[in-house]
Amino acid sequence: MAKRKTIQTNIAWSTTDTITVKGLDVCKDILGKVSLGDMAFLEMTDRLPTPRESVMFNAIAVCLVEHGLTPSALVTRLTIAGAPEAMQAAVGAGLCGLGSVFVGSMEDAARLLQQAMPQPEPGADIAALARDLVEREMASGGNVPGIGHHIHKPVDPRAPALFAIAREQGFEGPYVALMQAIAEEAGRRLGKSLPVNATGAIAAIACELGLPWEIVRGIGVMARAIGLVAHVLEELRDPLAREMKTMVEEMATAHHRPPA
Amino acid sequence: MAKRKTIQTNIAWSTTDTITVKGLDVCKDILGKVSLGDMAFLEMTDRLPTPRESVMFNAIAVCLVEHGLTPSALVTRLTIAGAPEAMQAAVGAGLCGLGSVFVGSMEDAARLLQQAMPQPEPGADIAALARDLVEREMASGGNVPGIGHHIHKPVDPRAPALFAIAREQGFEGPYVALMQAIAEEAGRRLGKSLPVNATGAIAAIACELGLPWEIVRGIGVMARAIGLVAHVLEELRDPLAREMKTMVEEMATAHHRPPA
Amino acid sequence: MAKRKTIQTNIAWSTTDTITVKGLDVCKDILGKVSLGDMAFLEMTDRLPTPRESVMFNAIAVCLVEHGLTPSALVTRLTIAGAPEAMQAAVGAGLCGLGSVFVGSMEDAARLLQQAMPQPEPGADIAALARDLVEREMASGGNVPGIGHHIHKPVDPRAPALFAIAREQGFEGPYVALMQAIAEEAGRRLGKSLPVNATGAIAAIACELGLPWEIVRGIGVMARAIGLVAHVLEELRDPLAREMKTMVEEMATAHHRPPA
Amino acid sequence: MAKRKTIQTNIAWSTTDTITVKGLDVCKDILGKVSLGDMAFLEMTDRLPTPRESVMFNAIAVCLVEHGLTPSALVTRLTIAGAPEAMQAAVGAGLCGLGSVFVGSMEDAARLLQQAMPQPEPGADIAALARDLVEREMASGGNVPGIGHHIHKPVDPRAPALFAIAREQGFEGPYVALMQAIAEEAGRRLGKSLPVNATGAIAAIACELGLPWEIVRGIGVMARAIGLVAHVLEELRDPLAREMKTMVEEMATAHHRPPA
Repeated sequence: MAKRKTIQTNIAWSTTDTITVKGLDVCKDILGKVSLGDMAFLEMTDRLPTPRESVMFNAIAVCLVEHGLTPSALVTRLTIAGAPEAMQAAVGAGLCGLGSVFVGSMEDAARLLQQAMPQPEPGADIAALARDLVEREMASGGNVPGIGHHIHKPVDPRAPALFAIAREQGFEGPYVALMQAIAEEAGRRLGKSLPVNATGAIAAIACELGLPWEIVRGIGVMARAIGLVAHVLEELRDPLAREMKTMVEEMATAHHRPPA
Repeated sequence: MAKRKTIQTNIAWSTTDTITVKGLDVCKDILGKVSLGDMAFLEMTDRLPTPRESVMFNAIAVCLVEHGLTPSALVTRLTIAGAPEAMQAAVGAGLCGLGSVFVGSMEDAARLLQQAMPQPEPGADIAALARDLVEREMASGGNVPGIGHHIHKPVDPRAPALFAIAREQGFEGPYVALMQAIAEEAGRRLGKSLPVNATGAIAAIACELGLPWEIVRGIGVMARAIGLVAHVLEELRDPLAREMKTMVEEMATAHHRPPA
Repeated sequence: MAKRKTIQTNIAWSTTDTITVKGLDVCKDILGKVSLGDMAFLEMTDRLPTPRESVMFNAIAVCLVEHGLTPSALVTRLTIAGAPEAMQAAVGAGLCGLGSVFVGSMEDAARLLQQAMPQPEPGADIAALARDLVEREMASGGNVPGIGHHIHKPVDPRAPALFAIAREQGFEGPYVALMQAIAEEAGRRLGKSLPVNATGAIAAIACELGLPWEIVRGIGVMARAIGLVAHVLEELRDPLAREMKTMVEEMATAHHRPPA
Repeated sequence: MAKRKTIQTNIAWSTTDTITVKGLDVCKDILGKVSLGDMAFLEMTDRLPTPRESVMFNAIAVCLVEHGLTPSALVTRLTIAGAPEAMQAAVGAGLCGLGSVFVGSMEDAARLLQQAMPQPEPGADIAALARDLVEREMASGGNVPGIGHHIHKPVDPRAPALFAIAREQGFEGPYVALMQAIAEEAGRRLGKSLPVNATGAIAAIACELGLPWEIVRGIGVMARAIGLVAHVLEELRDPLAREMKTMVEEMATAHHRPPA
């Protein structure tokens, strides 16, 4: 059969006795030698990380694994309650909500950073770039992504923790500087403190790692899949979904029923 | 508001200045110190792995990340082709197919092993357990899971690679022995070589790590989410889904159309 | 290219100027002539319904469209809150929970009915079939599906309403009789009133319509997709998901935080 | 417990002996009286359709049920092949791909029509509106949605069929006229025939029915769920997914393997 030229993959292939992923032999080069986080880096970039990249990438991925009872976690728990035979679909359903509102702000921040500075420029006028970027975002009516937090005040503690790792590992470069300058500029204009949050820190560090903004959301998606498995397990052992559903339904329809 | 006693989580919680996951402070104890694979172990077991557990758990998780153009990968690619704005749903849709047919055999193997030997018993009569288990499975008409492979012959190379790591790291215990005895017993009865495959090796090692069989599928689900992100990226850069769809549709409906 | 013989569909095909579904010309035979419910019947059975079948099938499908703030509806609403740009994934995620616990009982009831009476037998000993079936189900520790209701007491009002339509339209046959006999037998054994519920009525009527039990769940899946679109719309206009998430998260983690 | 004022639904509620949907009593007003298509209209608009609206709405919904082996249908079939125990997730996964590329063009067409003419204006200068709209769309580099077809040439036969029903039922109003004027204008500018396609006809008719453009995609989502159930059934009886997967994988990885 003639091979159509456009149906082709370069991620993985196998023969009867070998399995290859991104050019590496799974049995000889990967198993027992590459950790899950480094495998994720390989899948996203086509090469294994250096030791410093490994620490840095694992840190931002780990930061996205578990955020507690998020909408996604509730989705996974409500789904496993109805279909306990299909754990995979409960996790899949939970991922579906990682869109523009939550994980999207991480992607937006990375996009703005890369649009402002397509390549890392050590000598760039960071303050000027930040001013232009914040002005343009505010003029178009949007929120500047990656700054401030509705719960963690005065500062999201994950951001300084991630930036400290970036400093130690040599990733405190121009994107980190630009993200911090953006937070300062936005705070000055709005007259309140709006420090970089975890989302902004991860976006800036992803840019330092050379990841294109289009794939930054993918880090959140893969990491959260891990966290959602934990919510499946807790729901199976110590359920809350059905009680929550009953409570919410009663509350939400009370105005339609006659008083007892 | 009165707290209903059954709506409670112990996975993660936060205050204005701290975030806690499974009892660990995310900023102090986790970021920069715990790798993605070890975080997954923590999420599944409530504790961090020992160094040997870490190597072993990462190896089986990594083994499940990328299997090339599986049905799940095709699902993700067909979905991103229609909804490129929703990468998270493309990965979520891809996970939905990790059911009884593919990932289920790993769960089945782990279940059989744990039912035959609820606790690891160093002195167990492994051969007798294997005989009983294979006889019962064959009598009930089922396939024995975790053995043989339709492509990788004579042996799935990942199984010996994983068992070698188990030996090095001290996890070549009674479940590994039982899985190998099952493969031998089944092969003897059916008169052909049916060595343990990757699925069987992972199931046995998960049992050695003390993971309940009910959560073994979760390792596959979280690992594959990582792999599906790679397929999103390749599909966006070098698409094949639409060409595949056109080819398949033409092929599948040709008998309904008049010859040209 | 040689056509592989197993890649073939008989649902729909098209030429440059015609589109055919299940052998009917979409433009000449379907559009403006076939209602959505009758189209669903065609998709499930390969033929259009008679007028009586149409009334009956539409009634059971309509009965499954909207059940208020079910777990599925909450899933759809939590998902659209995070990804408002992907309505289709919010509905898709909502469907994932229609598994063994909720919609499965309808499938279970239909399966038991068809296993007890593979073909409709007007002269069957209904009471004896019901006795055997209930005894076997109770002996195996399962609940008898399709009877009783935790909210609608003494009787789920949809069941008599559906049975009345079945009587009018000529579908009050042996499966309806068997379902009612099952409810009586189970009630007698357990010493309480357990009338047929909506699930049991729909299952029995689906059997009367000649639908194999394996596809009964599909009626629920397609009907609920309609209802979930309504929840998307209400969530976009009058949201409740984020407020619910905040309330539940506070409640579920209160025991981990110091009293204010 | 104090009811939080924002957690409220007005879609459905129930008491021990009544079930209400959109203000109608399910048992008295809906079952046996309202067809599935009219129920969908009720769910989307808060009222039952008139007889003419019913014919029209059912026609556009039916038109979206079944398009053969689309990417969504392939997704559903690949998913049921891996998880035959979870039909609901196979349909859910299939819906996830109904995004901006396929169903989105229907939404885009409806949005453009409603932005150009927020309320139906019988005396509007349709030609001028069409000119402005096409000019603006082409200037911004986008395709004009709802016109032309890559297979159905010279004309998508569903469009004239739907417009004929619109004429008979009294819905051939200003939006239908505007859609046709857009097609003519775009064709003139590009020097080729680009008649209104099914997508464009449905969008225009949805506008005539008074449906806001934001919910037009929902008609496609609910209708396609019906069609995907048919693909589940065919895949279970006469599978093609695994053969397709094998064929595609061989084709896509052939360049990585040594010639036989």
